[in-house]
Amino acid sequence: MKKSTTLLLCFLLTYCLSAQTPHDHGHSHSSGRKITFPDVLGYKVLKCDFHQHSVFSDGSVWPDIRVQEAVRDGLDVISLTEHLEYQPHKEDIPHPNRNRSYQLALNSAKNQNLIVVRGSEVTRSMPPGHVNAIFIEDANKLMDDDPVKVFREAKKQGAFIFWNHPNWTSQVKDGMAKLTDMHRLLIKEGLLHGIEVVNDKNYSEEALQIAFDNNLAVIGSSDIHGLIDWQYDVPEGGHRPITLVFSKDKTEDGVKDALMNGRTVAWFNNTLIGKNEFLVPLIESSIVVKEVTYSSKTTVAHITIENTSDAEFVLENQSDYTLHLHADIVNIKPNTTTILEVKTIKALDSFNMKFKVLNAVDAPKSHPEINLQFEVK
Amino acid sequence: MKKSTTLLLCFLLTYCLSAQTPHDHGHSHSSGRKITFPDVLGYKVLKCDFHQHSVFSDGSVWPDIRVQEAVRDGLDVISLTEHLEYQPHKEDIPHPNRNRSYQLALNSAKNQNLIVVRGSEVTRSMPPGHVNAIFIEDANKLMDDDPVKVFREAKKQGAFIFWNHPNWTSQVKDGMAKLTDMHRLLIKEGLLHGIEVVNDKNYSEEALQIAFDNNLAVIGSSDIHGLIDWQYDVPEGGHRPITLVFSKDKTEDGVKDALMNGRTVAWFNNTLIGKNEFLVPLIESSIVVKEVTYSSKTTVAHITIENTSDAEFVLENQSDYTLHLHADIVNIKPNTTTILEVKTIKALDSFNMKFKVLNAVDAPKSHPEINLQFEVK
Amino acid sequence: MKKSTTLLLCFLLTYCLSAQTPHDHGHSHSSGRKITFPDVLGYKVLKCDFHQHSVFSDGSVWPDIRVQEAVRDGLDVISLTEHLEYQPHKEDIPHPNRNRSYQLALNSAKNQNLIVVRGSEVTRSMPPGHVNAIFIEDANKLMDDDPVKVFREAKKQGAFIFWNHPNWTSQVKDGMAKLTDMHRLLIKEGLLHGIEVVNDKNYSEEALQIAFDNNLAVIGSSDIHGLIDWQYDVPEGGHRPITLVFSKDKTEDGVKDALMNGRTVAWFNNTLIGKNEFLVPLIESSIVVKEVTYSSKTTVAHITIENTSDAEFVLENQSDYTLHLHADIVNIKPNTTTILEVKTIKALDSFNMKFKVLNAVDAPKSHPEINLQFEVK
Amino acid sequence: MKKSTTLLLCFLLTYCLSAQTPHDHGHSHSSGRKITFPDVLGYKVLKCDFHQHSVFSDGSVWPDIRVQEAVRDGLDVISLTEHLEYQPHKEDIPHPNRNRSYQLALNSAKNQNLIVVRGSEVTRSMPPGHVNAIFIEDANKLMDDDPVKVFREAKKQGAFIFWNHPNWTSQVKDGMAKLTDMHRLLIKEGLLHGIEVVNDKNYSEEALQIAFDNNLAVIGSSDIHGLIDWQYDVPEGGHRPITLVFSKDKTEDGVKDALMNGRTVAWFNNTLIGKNEFLVPLIESSIVVKEVTYSSKTTVAHITIENTSDAEFVLENQSDYTLHLHADIVNIKPNTTTILEVKTIKALDSFNMKFKVLNAVDAPKSHPEINLQFEVK
Repeated sequence: MKKSTTLLLCFLLTYCLSAQTPHDHGHSHSSGRKITFPDVLGYKVLKCDFHQHSVFSDGSVWPDIRVQEAVRDGLDVISLTEHLEYQPHKEDIPHPNRNRSYQLALNSAKNQNLIVVRGSEVTRSMPPGHVNAIFIEDANKLMDDDPVKVFREAKKQGAFIFWNHPNWTSQVKDGMAKLTDMHRLLIKEGLLHGIEVVNDKNYSEEALQIAFDNNLAVIGSSDIHGLIDWQYDVPEGGHRPITLVFSKDKTEDGVKDALMNGRTVAWFNNTLIGKNEFLVPLIESSIVVKEVTYSSKTTVAHITIENTSDAEFVLENQSDYTLHLHADIVNIKPNTTTILEVKTIKALDSFNMKFKVLNAVDAPKSHPEINLQFEVK
Repeated sequence: MKKSTTLLLCFLLTYCLSAQTPHDHGHSHSSGRKITFPDVLGYKVLKCDFHQHSVFSDGSVWPDIRVQEAVRDGLDVISLTEHLEYQPHKEDIPHPNRNRSYQLALNSAKNQNLIVVRGSEVTRSMPPGHVNAIFIEDANKLMDDDPVKVFREAKKQGAFIFWNHPNWTSQVKDGMAKLTDMHRLLIKEGLLHGIEVVNDKNYSEEALQIAFDNNLAVIGSSDIHGLIDWQYDVPEGGHRPITLVFSKDKTEDGVKDALMNGRTVAWFNNTLIGKNEFLVPLIESSIVVKEVTYSSKTTVAHITIENTSDAEFVLENQSDYTLHLHADIVNIKPNTTTILEVKTIKALDSFNMKFKVLNAVDAPKSHPEINLQFEVK
Repeated sequence: MKKSTTLLLCFLLTYCLSAQTPHDHGHSHSSGRKITFPDVLGYKVLKCDFHQHSVFSDGSVWPDIRVQEAVRDGLDVISLTEHLEYQPHKEDIPHPNRNRSYQLALNSAKNQNLIVVRGSEVTRSMPPGHVNAIFIEDANKLMDDDPVKVFREAKKQGAFIFWNHPNWTSQVKDGMAKLTDMHRLLIKEGLLHGIEVVNDKNYSEEALQIAFDNNLAVIGSSDIHGLIDWQYDVPEGGHRPITLVFSKDKTEDGVKDALMNGRTVAWFNNTLIGKNEFLVPLIESSIVVKEVTYSSKTTVAHITIENTSDAEFVLENQSDYTLHLHADIVNIKPNTTTILEVKTIKALDSFNMKFKVLNAVDAPKSHPEINLQFEVK
Repeated sequence: MKKSTTLLLCFLLTYCLSAQTPHDHGHSHSSGRKITFPDVLGYKVLKCDFHQHSVFSDGSVWPDIRVQEAVRDGLDVISLTEHLEYQPHKEDIPHPNRNRSYQLALNSAKNQNLIVVRGSEVTRSMPPGHVNAIFIEDANKLMDDDPVKVFREAKKQGAFIFWNHPNWTSQVKDGMAKLTDMHRLLIKEGLLHGIEVVNDKNYSEEALQIAFDNNLAVIGSSDIHGLIDWQYDVPEGGHRPITLVFSKDKTEDGVKDALMNGRTVAWFNNTLIGKNEFLVPLIESSIVVKEVTYSSKTTVAHITIENTSDAEFVLENQSDYTLHLHADIVNIKPNTTTILEVKTIKALDSFNMKFKVLNAVDAPKSHPEINLQFEVK
């Protein structure tokens, strides 16, 4: 008996001496998958995914994988928002502590330049459907049969609360997001601050209209249960949906302030969705005019443009000048340089052009217009 | 002396016995680069490049390379259109036979399912600028100081004649294609039948308007001098500009008839340019609806679409139904299957949707609209 | 109170009606990553990974992810071998049932053509170090301070038992696998049947010698804790280490019989490791001679070879004939066709050639030799 | 008449004002295809292709394409070696000047940091077969029925003369390079200085033996007639065969001196072929040891190696130490960093290891051995 106890002790000592995760001989590099957008308007443009699951509700990974995925994707802020009421793994993970997922993610994110925000998914039938409360203080206190009480408790804790997948066909069979009286009440009482216009692979034009009509922050989330890499074909160039948050700084307070004031854009399937006032400067900052010249014998301006963002912009020329290398639609590949040639009829010292940005949405069926200014060298 | 003659004879015999090109141990496969579009309207949709150069004018390759490039690109018809008047290699290739390039290409194309059409580039200052005469009988007879005489001779030979790069900045400094009196005269006399709306990497909206105003066939050409693979980044997925010809059959006569009757679409930088009457059926035939279903609990239609063409279509939803997986812009990747989900509010037996096709141009700043019909299974 | 209970019920009903994993709109295809080797010697060559972890010991995923990874990799058999004694997640997953991981994986693998074998990792300091017991009946009965008792219990249950990472530097600082008296005893008593020659990214030549000296089955395992895709750079063409098992059929019994009789080859980092008697037929079956011809004028044989396996073979020519397209080293790319040309001096009706297979190991520093037979057409 | 002359003049002026190749709007970048090897032994290691054809004999491109291909491949020196006696295009290119191809290439290479060397292919039946004379002064003077006279004239002009494809099956049906009395005479008289061990896709072990037995420089050449990109699948990572020349400087004189003194290595299909005295330092310079450490608790050395060359080295461990991450064969990918782990049993301050380099050939069936020195940090 004594001998075997010694053996066991030896073993445990061995473990302590060895690395935390045994046999792990190095990770592959998180190569070119990091999501990049420029800062703008004096704000940090933070990449955030506020809706994710782990084994602590109905997800399939431990919280550390969510942290590693986020680091690989270059995210700034995440929240693990376990279902409070739906705990399919509770036979194996029976404890009542709804803050546990957050604690584990927080610990895993140490030294990673990644903010982890405490959150929970309040998981109810419609209305109100599912909502996320993030920036809360204690998830356990959100457990109550009456959903309105839950919202009030969340508000008391200082939460930012947003409506999840209002278009979810399991709850609305036609997939059409619609406000109910309960939602109107919640909004009126300041208990609902945002709405998912994008959830996983779904986009809702109706949700966008609801956001604008009710001054709710536009949110895009992965709602990931399995693996980000598989769900969004990341190795083939896909990306998860996220919310770009225009924050004064990279702090929890900054992010919360930005959310509460609706300074967000959703980034989904190469599409930017949000208010015109944020979309236009974001896109104009992404597209940097590097050089404009005329060859001495022509009046065709040769323009070098650099796209510093991850978006492939699809621009529609709205100006009177016609293009020499394109029809009126121009694709601007991400993180690369593109040449435009513009027939200005006369040699000019400077000129500007307007483009509609077709892969950006500033209202249902509406695309923002940017203005590019060209100074000839 | 006799011995060395024998040696020489031995050598020549060796060459005759060995393969035509010595030391050539097999070519790499012309893999996925073949340009594909479906046949439509009872026509063969033939891939044609009617404007190319070889060493017999100012190009850098022997005609056999032009044939091999065309075979790799899956073209149906080519023409080598050497400059009649511009012969920078004439110090080395002095002979006066302007048909020579055609003859060599024709010989090289044997057994290749590739039609080679006899053509020439009439190379004049503006007006009339450069024009190509194809389907001619003898290029040598097109040599005359008076360009109008040349047009008349070409017509006599039965040529299809088109205006090359009317937007070429070496001849029009502002790059704006404009008709001159001489062009009007040529058109009136039936001496000009087509116009390059696309030449190499240039597109001209003004040329497209001229084509429509004057009933000229829309032409897209590479005007290649160097190598197709380098000029259009073919290994990275690029393609040369071509003319899609809607021909009764794959014969010279069929192609000429189609050209004379303006049954053409230019294919350039992932953009289709031409008359609405050809664009719409071409695109509607390219996009095949495979299956439409509702899951039993929802009224969101799940649609599987197959794009059988090489074009990545950029569609803008014009219908009242909103989409569940996309905003109003939908990218349909080439030669692959795409899923659309449509919120039809009620479960329907069939419905249709209209989309504007943004990467197709049916007039300056105008995009054709297609109609997709969905029969629910 | 009653109302909110109804709400809760409604919600739960909603969940039952919706798909099992909510919001999952389809997975990307498990494309070309499936590991393929031909069957041979009348055996099925089964792809097996017998050493894996989930959240039920120190892994980072729920068992369903292990099943999905295996399906994507085209595996035939897996075992989740949680540490019996090392349970770092026990604060969250406190239950004492060591069979739980197996049960969840088994359920997840339904309808997947994937065999899940019950197993456990006995996790002790050296000696004996860590061992896996698979094909057991009840993992819970393997909990005992005395490791030898554990082995005996496992044997009683019919287990196949193998020594894990005998070269693990946390237990042997020099990384040199060495038998101890305890191991000799275990082997003598029939309590140890296999040994990991490959664990994760490590290979042990010394372990291979121990396997051969003691008639232990050669095992290669991933010992995965995180994600297979990240750990082995799968999107870039990497693969996890596995054991190829030469089994009479694809059944648990067949696999166990094969293991007990040492019919295995490890597949690691493009290297095949095992007994010559299995390596040689496996490789000879992988390389299919499709056609052998002479051109009429030469005595250089032109040979078309198809590699039907996932291995890139590196062959060293051992025959007297020299090659026309290669030096003595020939790379045979996986799942593709390769041309060899052989200078046979005279035109032959048939001939054979011997090659050493450098990416296969049949003993420390030894590579098997294959014989390819060529029948001239 | 006068008017049309003016038109013609206008046109020509237009051409002069426009760029040399009209309508050429920029080339794609010659991206990662440049062939790279480090300088070594105080020599510049120059990348040279001394055997190429253009339309001036039986090739299919104008000389400018050969220059552009060379620039894209990062070559330092090329020679266009047109057949003196075989002029299949002479109906079109009738002039007698055999220096013309060189002159055009030289002009095209201006400002390109590419040396163009004057050369010719003497094209005879066997013996002597085909030979290239490069560094000549006047190709026209090499036209004579008596091949020996040609060699003497070439020598008089200061030529470096090498035997082309001695294994060419059109001249030796068994593909076995063999010296004849005529070759022995030529060598004895100092009229033959090198031999192609590699021509296009063929390698000749017998030619390598002849090179070593007769002190001839080892040469590898493309003998390209068509396009380099197609013949060697360059977009898929292939490369043309070249000769690496160990030259005092990047000058014609330096190259010629190196060739005359046999300081060459052939680079073919990822294989380096040449004398041990050049191979070993070239490979040892290509593989840079960046860092060697022990983790505090182990005696397994962790080594970071950088391969600065384009060769994927296949190393076979010849030392007594065994490896922790590999069997005895190690692949070192080109232009990247590789980790080796070595079990040194004791912690050492420094140690060395020998590896056989399997993708290098220093004699028929022989591979050079390199020594890597590791200083522990």
